[in-house]
Amino acid sequence: MQKTQQFVPDKNNILQASENIRDMAHVTPVMTCRTLNDMAGRNLYFKMENFQKAGAFKYRGALHAVKTLRDIPAVAAHSSGNHAQALALAARQRGIPAYLVMPKGSTPAKVAAVRSYGGTVIPCENTLESREQTLLKVLEDTGSAFIHPYDDGRTISGQATCAREFIEQAGDLDVIVTPLGGGGLLSGTALSAYYFGKYIRVVGAEPAGADDGYRSFVSGTLVTDLKPDTIADGLRTRLSELTFSIIRNYVHEVVTVSEEEIIEAMRLMWERMKVVIEPSAAVPVAAMVFRKAKCSGTNVGIIVSGGNADLTSLPWKGAPSGASYN
Amino acid sequence: MQKTQQFVPDKNNILQASENIRDMAHVTPVMTCRTLNDMAGRNLYFKMENFQKAGAFKYRGALHAVKTLRDIPAVAAHSSGNHAQALALAARQRGIPAYLVMPKGSTPAKVAAVRSYGGTVIPCENTLESREQTLLKVLEDTGSAFIHPYDDGRTISGQATCAREFIEQAGDLDVIVTPLGGGGLLSGTALSAYYFGKYIRVVGAEPAGADDGYRSFVSGTLVTDLKPDTIADGLRTRLSELTFSIIRNYVHEVVTVSEEEIIEAMRLMWERMKVVIEPSAAVPVAAMVFRKAKCSGTNVGIIVSGGNADLTSLPWKGAPSGASYN
Repeated sequence: MQKTQQFVPDKNNILQASENIRDMAHVTPVMTCRTLNDMAGRNLYFKMENFQKAGAFKYRGALHAVKTLRDIPAVAAHSSGNHAQALALAARQRGIPAYLVMPKGSTPAKVAAVRSYGGTVIPCENTLESREQTLLKVLEDTGSAFIHPYDDGRTISGQATCAREFIEQAGDLDVIVTPLGGGGLLSGTALSAYYFGKYIRVVGAEPAGADDGYRSFVSGTLVTDLKPDTIADGLRTRLSELTFSIIRNYVHEVVTVSEEEIIEAMRLMWERMKVVIEPSAAVPVAAMVFRKAKCSGTNVGIIVSGGNADLTSLPWKGAPSGASYN
Repeated sequence: MQKTQQFVPDKNNILQASENIRDMAHVTPVMTCRTLNDMAGRNLYFKMENFQKAGAFKYRGALHAVKTLRDIPAVAAHSSGNHAQALALAARQRGIPAYLVMPKGSTPAKVAAVRSYGGTVIPCENTLESREQTLLKVLEDTGSAFIHPYDDGRTISGQATCAREFIEQAGDLDVIVTPLGGGGLLSGTALSAYYFGKYIRVVGAEPAGADDGYRSFVSGTLVTDLKPDTIADGLRTRLSELTFSIIRNYVHEVVTVSEEEIIEAMRLMWERMKVVIEPSAAVPVAAMVFRKAKCSGTNVGIIVSGGNADLTSLPWKGAPSGASYN
């Protein structure tokens, strides 16, 4: 497998990434909701990356990585989700082809979205081995650069721009919470909190059904025996050595939430705040609303990672409780 | 029935209303979406009143009306929807009771929302006669002031604040489009466009299945034989003499859209822009995306009236087309 760029971004890398994506990425808004504040017992600030291009923060890392390339004919990755969409869009905007290896069984809407951004979809079996072998062949055949969704310093630098922007917008945050899957967003966020914040504590929130990050963080040893079982499809990936090393050094707490809590938090956001967010994005919301984090702090920033939810089958049942954003 | 305040708001009434609600109502954001621009062939600016308190622009009119009252022990109205929620919340914030006559068969979520804002729900049969008789008794029993959802100059002044704010935010709009039900939002918008805009054309968009406004506008005579059949539950009401008189004088065009177009526009907003909007709010979006309006103009403002959608039963079938807001 082609080497990814294994480096821990420094302050300058993140500033360069911010500059690099500035002309194309959205500065997403920050929203608040009194009802959710009351539930959490803290002031919550939501950074709405569901409004980012391609519907998720992943566009930041993909765009930055693509824009750093010189004389590369194409890009490629394996991904079942938001990274594939983000990379397809970023590549199209740079005028180069993108090859996305996507396992059979990927959500049809996400496959359709990749194609709508001009990406070439190459199907594979739904195993890590098949994904990697298929990708290897694509890289050889096309001369593409491999843009890893998180195990790459360029991608992490791009994801870090979100927290940097958030700190600038929201002012004195005591805590920032992000979802934890492969660790790209969490590690980038932790680096930005360290470089650009004032004593910000960083919390990773993970589904209990995909808790390799939690177990790694608590034990101090990278856990790789992940058998994910969660509705949060963006968080079914496992940490890499690179993201784990950053998380160990810069993250203050990792917490887990149940499937019921994820679904309830997702519904609260749709119902009260009138925003479409995907299950993975509801994970840090659940962590705060259901008071999972031990760390103190009044002003809490939550990165709402994406909005590419399946609009044909909603995960809740019964009538919503009905009240509105206020 | 207690008299409503039958006056056509002037510039000063609208400025007073803006001042009156300023400390409590949200200044809702304006959003854009390139995909929808391409479909419409114009630049669309969306004024997101789904993010307003109580989930709809109705809060503006209700709050203004409630705040103009002196020495009134309570307020009351009949409404099956957003006006009931808005009035309940506005009354609670002023520390007075609100009595809402709601027909049996109202969406349970909306009834629950009214109660969550502290409103007292009084059920009635689902006929205009039962609604009015039940309300009359409530007014007599409680000494409440009747706050009509649209047939009242105070309510219209409040709704007009939305377009005034929109013009300030979005700059040179050529056209503003709103949904048309009872005509409170459309008439308020037309007055604000006249007083605060520069040659802005105002378009009302109505479901073909509840087209009393269209028929009234075209014929010049108020049509009252409405038998509404539309998913846009907020637009099943009919014009009043007051709103019709304003619409005749200040609105440039009224167009209708089909149920299929409403549902498709609603889905586009959820899917591409990641925002929860209700069917009524999708009506002006449908009018622009499906190119119903004859009036020229590049920069088009759309008032996205509310977000109180039923989150348990979505109106579309099959997989969404999948791409995202960009």
